[in-house]
Amino acid sequence: MKIGEQTLVFEKKPKILNTASIVGPKESEGPLSIFFDHKIEDELFGEESFEKAESKFTQAAIDALLTKAPLDKYMVDCIFAGDLLNQCIATGYAIRDSNIPLFGLYGACSTFVEALILASSFVNAGYYKRCIATASSHFGSAERQFRLPLQQGSQRTPTQQWTVTGAGAALVTHNNDRYKSPVVTHATVGKIVDMGIKDVANMGAAMAPAAFDTILTHLEDTKRKADYYDLIITGDLGKMGSEILIELLQAKGINISTNHNDCGMLIYDLVSQDMHAGGSGCACCATVFSGYVYDLLKSKKIKNVLLVATGALMSPVSLGQGESIPSIAHAVAIETEV
Amino acid sequence: MKIGEQTLVFEKKPKILNTASIVGPKESEGPLSIFFDHKIEDELFGEESFEKAESKFTQAAIDALLTKAPLDKYMVDCIFAGDLLNQCIATGYAIRDSNIPLFGLYGACSTFVEALILASSFVNAGYYKRCIATASSHFGSAERQFRLPLQQGSQRTPTQQWTVTGAGAALVTHNNDRYKSPVVTHATVGKIVDMGIKDVANMGAAMAPAAFDTILTHLEDTKRKADYYDLIITGDLGKMGSEILIELLQAKGINISTNHNDCGMLIYDLVSQDMHAGGSGCACCATVFSGYVYDLLKSKKIKNVLLVATGALMSPVSLGQGESIPSIAHAVAIETEV
Repeated sequence: MKIGEQTLVFEKKPKILNTASIVGPKESEGPLSIFFDHKIEDELFGEESFEKAESKFTQAAIDALLTKAPLDKYMVDCIFAGDLLNQCIATGYAIRDSNIPLFGLYGACSTFVEALILASSFVNAGYYKRCIATASSHFGSAERQFRLPLQQGSQRTPTQQWTVTGAGAALVTHNNDRYKSPVVTHATVGKIVDMGIKDVANMGAAMAPAAFDTILTHLEDTKRKADYYDLIITGDLGKMGSEILIELLQAKGINISTNHNDCGMLIYDLVSQDMHAGGSGCACCATVFSGYVYDLLKSKKIKNVLLVATGALMSPVSLGQGESIPSIAHAVAIETEV
Repeated sequence: MKIGEQTLVFEKKPKILNTASIVGPKESEGPLSIFFDHKIEDELFGEESFEKAESKFTQAAIDALLTKAPLDKYMVDCIFAGDLLNQCIATGYAIRDSNIPLFGLYGACSTFVEALILASSFVNAGYYKRCIATASSHFGSAERQFRLPLQQGSQRTPTQQWTVTGAGAALVTHNNDRYKSPVVTHATVGKIVDMGIKDVANMGAAMAPAAFDTILTHLEDTKRKADYYDLIITGDLGKMGSEILIELLQAKGINISTNHNDCGMLIYDLVSQDMHAGGSGCACCATVFSGYVYDLLKSKKIKNVLLVATGALMSPVSLGQGESIPSIAHAVAIETEV
């Protein structure tokens, strides 16, 4: 089942039977707009707080997924899910009425891929037949919690990223039905990497070494060349982080400059939307994968992808106590079924 | 692999090869003192903050586990871990230098059992040979984050619980070596249950219905009677929560009054230590299991146990916004190898 030290092989090839994505206003105006299932113009989503709104985004993503699948809720064996908020409240409140068993996760912005790995592992092992992997984030709730309340109107640095408002969800199922869908073939579980970076306005730089470590390990474990993948897509390194990742790999003789992209750079038009270094947040990878990348796979525009979500595992408290930003990156290899 | 809807069966019977526990001063003075591997008199553990101290507790628990096993760090395939702090910083900083892959979890006080379930699932499936499940909490960091800074000296209600300072860790391994150790046979993954309770000073009451739901499901799925288990031990329901749980099960004709206990009631002498309703926190279940319960199994004083950890998934923000306390309980069945 396992090759190398860190990479799992899913021999039964669990299927990503369907995905769903829902985004807020900024994401609806971005270049990937047509790929998202639901676009919400009101960033409060009719709720009284950003936190409640985020929870509703998660709930709506799960509902949309079940409608698209289509699948009755009671057919879902388990949900693997998490978000950025303290005590993962967006997730907890979103699924409290679902009556579906939950594994709650915290991997910061790597959560969606962490959830996909766990869901695929459980399906591949035969424990479950149908699992949901989901993650959310919200610009308003993230700014208030990690930085400053929006009302303060504080200035943003050029290296700063913009937390994506939305949620993405994927339905991972056992591979014995008649629908052709992309399958999960490998997963590389990340180790924490901390290069001592303390600038919370430059998370891309903090997380790039973790992405480097996981991608390098994945390629070594699977004995694949980087150009094996039509697309190596990182979660939310943004502009700065992506440049660092490409350079770090280049120094090891690995060139991903032609097949790499980053969800955070795709979701917004960085210039016209004034998005500085790009998008971030759990929903960045979750919505771009569930919307855009899944569509590329399903329509066979690409035949395989390495999805690498990165997470910065600090908190405002740890930074205030002088700590640096420990980071992690989890990767899954997904390919179209032939 | 699966019976019923929620209960996993581990046919390969992953072993809990060893455990380690480390606690703070209050726990060292409690009735279970002799069962803990390390007792730290300084609640700051030589650090400058409670958060850093908590991180050091996790690190020390892992180190103690590897020493006891004995096992070299590089032989560990993966860590499943989490804690109560925002962004799970106790865990992140504790293992950032370990060079071991991590699945970060958030299940509030249910985290230790969540980690045990995932570690057992991965070992049983053959993905990994040796995994660590660990969780921590700290009275000082929890009070500051969830309630009020200690310096304020606020009064405690009689229903209130005391967050355990410490960390517990378990080494789950594949079952093909010569050491006899307790094995994990079943796991029941919890669903969120929310009965509308909003009193954060009475978490036992909020969490009892989740424990009820999971225990009932476990017994139905496995077709076992409650008296099959020598011990059904909950994580941190405390005095009030335990009474509610017993009553709820009684109403279904299930009597656990003779074989139930609660880690939160065992870890302190509630009267002489003035601990009100008992202990709580991720470390409550983690240290009492890793110290006391594991010893009972290993020394064959009991032959099997159902360990049920409960978690309250609210946050100070969600309570401030008028929300109730969604709760979850995960259960694992562990038995001595014959």
